[in-house]
Amino acid sequence: MTPNTNGCLIGVSLGPGDPELLTCRAFKLLQGNYHWTYPVRKPGGDSYALDIARRAGLKPPRAHTPLVFPMTSDPTRLAKAWLTAAQAVLEILYRGEDVAFLVEGDASTYATFGHLARSVAALDATIRIETVPGVASFSAAAARLGMPLADTDEAIAILPAGYGTAQAEQLLEHFDTLVLLKIKPMLEPFIAWLCSRNLLAHAHLVEKVGMPEERIVHDVAALQGETVHYLSLLLVRNPRRTRQQPVRGCRPQPAVAGAGG
Amino acid sequence: MTPNTNGCLIGVSLGPGDPELLTCRAFKLLQGNYHWTYPVRKPGGDSYALDIARRAGLKPPRAHTPLVFPMTSDPTRLAKAWLTAAQAVLEILYRGEDVAFLVEGDASTYATFGHLARSVAALDATIRIETVPGVASFSAAAARLGMPLADTDEAIAILPAGYGTAQAEQLLEHFDTLVLLKIKPMLEPFIAWLCSRNLLAHAHLVEKVGMPEERIVHDVAALQGETVHYLSLLLVRNPRRTRQQPVRGCRPQPAVAGAGG
Repeated sequence: MTPNTNGCLIGVSLGPGDPELLTCRAFKLLQGNYHWTYPVRKPGGDSYALDIARRAGLKPPRAHTPLVFPMTSDPTRLAKAWLTAAQAVLEILYRGEDVAFLVEGDASTYATFGHLARSVAALDATIRIETVPGVASFSAAAARLGMPLADTDEAIAILPAGYGTAQAEQLLEHFDTLVLLKIKPMLEPFIAWLCSRNLLAHAHLVEKVGMPEERIVHDVAALQGETVHYLSLLLVRNPRRTRQQPVRGCRPQPAVAGAGG
Repeated sequence: MTPNTNGCLIGVSLGPGDPELLTCRAFKLLQGNYHWTYPVRKPGGDSYALDIARRAGLKPPRAHTPLVFPMTSDPTRLAKAWLTAAQAVLEILYRGEDVAFLVEGDASTYATFGHLARSVAALDATIRIETVPGVASFSAAAARLGMPLADTDEAIAILPAGYGTAQAEQLLEHFDTLVLLKIKPMLEPFIAWLCSRNLLAHAHLVEKVGMPEERIVHDVAALQGETVHYLSLLLVRNPRRTRQQPVRGCRPQPAVAGAGG
C-alpha cells in the first residue's frame, strides 16, 4: 500500500450548535465525497456533532461510521477507545476513502479530534491530516450575551471549572474574562465565590449555546439548587482587574481594522 | 422617530482571513439588504474586513460606509473616533436601514465592534444590536499548525504579548497553552525567554493566518532580527505545567461527543 493511494483525514468543526454557524468550508466539504465519522458515547448512541450537521440540512452519506468515545476519565479505557477509533479510521483510509470526522465546536479546543488525529498519526505517520477550524462555544456565548470576551489590552483565561474557585481567585489578578467550562458540578461553589467577590452582576451562564434548547441566565444566583446541562459555561467579566502597564514601547494597539481576534 | 422604524446594527464576524471560514450565517446575511460599514485606519484607507468579504465573493452593496478607527492609543482621539463612528451608524439606522458592521476574526474577541456597539447603545438605548460570532485567529492558527489549543483538563491563556515575558512566566504555572497576540514588537524578548525556558520546540509563530500571504514559522529562533507583520501571534504549548488535581468529584470529563470548544 503506497501512501498516496490512502485517503486523508479531516477534522471538520461544526461550531457549537447553531447550524448557521458552520463555516462555508465545512458546509461545502460535507457535501463532497467523504466517509463521515463522528463521536458517540456508546454504541448506538446519539451524536451531537451529527445532529448539528443534520440540522444544517446536510445528509449523511451512505458511508458513515460512528466512533465510540466513552464518557470516562479512566486512562486505560480512554487509550483503548482512541486506538480502536484510530484503527477503524485507518481501515477506511487504506481503502482510499477520505474521512471527515465531525466535531462540535472548534476541533482544536477541548475536542476529541486531537486524540483521534494523534492516535492515527502514531499508527501511520504517512497519513495526511487536516483541520477545519470553527466557532468556539465561548465566542458564540459572548455573541449571544452581547458582551466582549476581550477588549483592547485585555486578557482571557479559558479553563474547566473543575479546577475550583481557588484557582479562579488566583487568575482574577491577571485576567479580564474567565471562561469556566463544564460548570455543572461546580455551580454551587462558584455561585458562592461570585457572591463573595461581588461578581454576580458580571457573570452569565450559557447552556447549550446555539442549540434549540439554548438557555441564557443572567441572574446566576437564581440557579442555586438547580442542575444545569453538561454543556454549560460560565462567563465572568472582571471589572476590577489590576491592569499591569504593557511594556513601554509595546503598548498593545487599540482594536482597529485588522485587530480582530 | 419611533424605535421600531429604526434599523438594527449587526456585527458580522468574517473569521481571520480565509474567505471559506465565513460562517454560513455571515455569508447569507451579507447577501441580504444591509448597509455595510467596516473599519479603516484612515479616510480612504484599505479595510482588512472588507477585503475578506470581497475574497469570499461577496459584492459590497451600493450603500456602504467606511468608519475611521485610527491606529492610536490616545484615549481622547479613540473616544472621539468611536463617537463619530457611532453617530454615522445612527444616522443610517434612523433612516430605517439595517447596518452590517464587518469584523475580521470574531466580533467579541479584541475587535472594534464592542466599542462601536457600546457607543451606539450609549447614544440610543433602543437600537437593536446583534452579533454573529466567527472563527477566532487562534483557532485558525491551531488548525493550521495541527495542534490543540486545549486537550481535556487543559487551560488556555490569551493575552497581548505587550504584557511581557514576566507575565508569561507567571502564567506558565497555570496554563497549558499561551496565545500571545500582537507579538511584533515583543518578538526578541520572547525568543530569549522561550530559549531560557527550553520552550522553543513548543512555540510557533503564525502570521496573517488564512490570508494569501499566511506564514507559519516553527523555528521561531530563526526570526531573530526579523520584523514580522502586525497580524502575528505566538502559540506556546507548555509541556511541563504542574497540573493541579481537579476538585474531587468534579474531574473534568474527557473530551467526548458534546465536549467540543
